[in-house]
Amino acid sequence: MPQRAGKRRPGRRPGESQTRDAILDAARARFAEHGWDRTTIRAIARDADVDPALVMHFFDSKALLFASAMRWPFDSDAVLTQILEGPRSELGLRLARFFLSVWEEPGRREPIMVMLRAASTNEQAADLLRETLMTVLLGPLGSRLGTPDGELRMSLCSAHLIGLGIARYLLEFEPLASLAPEQVADLVGPTLQRYMTGDL
Amino acid sequence: MPQRAGKRRPGRRPGESQTRDAILDAARARFAEHGWDRTTIRAIARDADVDPALVMHFFDSKALLFASAMRWPFDSDAVLTQILEGPRSELGLRLARFFLSVWEEPGRREPIMVMLRAASTNEQAADLLRETLMTVLLGPLGSRLGTPDGELRMSLCSAHLIGLGIARYLLEFEPLASLAPEQVADLVGPTLQRYMTGDL
Repeated sequence: MPQRAGKRRPGRRPGESQTRDAILDAARARFAEHGWDRTTIRAIARDADVDPALVMHFFDSKALLFASAMRWPFDSDAVLTQILEGPRSELGLRLARFFLSVWEEPGRREPIMVMLRAASTNEQAADLLRETLMTVLLGPLGSRLGTPDGELRMSLCSAHLIGLGIARYLLEFEPLASLAPEQVADLVGPTLQRYMTGDL
Repeated sequence: MPQRAGKRRPGRRPGESQTRDAILDAARARFAEHGWDRTTIRAIARDADVDPALVMHFFDSKALLFASAMRWPFDSDAVLTQILEGPRSELGLRLARFFLSVWEEPGRREPIMVMLRAASTNEQAADLLRETLMTVLLGPLGSRLGTPDGELRMSLCSAHLIGLGIARYLLEFEPLASLAPEQVADLVGPTLQRYMTGDL
């Protein structure tokens, strides 16, 4: 994830990057253990042994600190290969399977849920989530589909998948929430396939 | 929206319903202006000129107060008619158009966004949003599709539409965010049509 949130001033003092890293380490540990709501800037600052004002100086807001601290819960190069390699007629199915494999694991879907939650109240967090998704996954995938309108296609796929995550894992719409992942992949795969390679 | 949260006791004092209405008015104004996270029971009580304990007495929790205060931003009977009447082959298109007509207006999508936000941090709010959507729209629509698996079909449609709302209006994925509503309806209509009437 790009470290956009830190203010990189020309006059940065030596030691600043260690301080920044200590804050990021503390933030990762806190967010992982306590989640978004119960993590405070104050507690992160205490863990990192710095003043809360310094955390705000580096990161501006809890949402941007979170976004900077987040590690994307998959290796995007490996994922691109996994989705793109194989029969072209099953691109949508492979994308659906990959998505479900991430969301099936609470430890991997939780960071994405936290980012979505932050994005829903904070415009900077929304910008970051969009740009990150575009940079690590949707942009590269769209440009390698071999079909025109790659960005439109991938934005339609992500619209469907984000909603699938929310409906299945957060709102728990039935029977969608109780189906096996493979059944869900079979249901949404053809939709993603049309968005990726079909006539729009 | 059904007013499930209010405790209607036989011995209700005169003036109680005015007090309850005053709390609901204050809640609507607070949630609209400050959103879910920054709205407190205490502030709503202050605005309504009552004790915070009385707010809890009437509504039990912030999530249930919110759900009671929310007005569903459409008349569900009219919507069902609007979606179900017309060529069967355009059911998906009509559902997409209806959804987009609500989300195009900030004043109508904001209550839904606030409910989604509440649902992402509060299980009671998630239960309420799911049950409300099912009761007012998805259940009746699913049972009148004339196809088996109506609930599965409508849960797939809602998965896609919730994600469309988030991707287009919150995360602003491009070019999806800039297309005219009618173009978006044409893109997602066939997907909804397959989910509503196709082979699954």
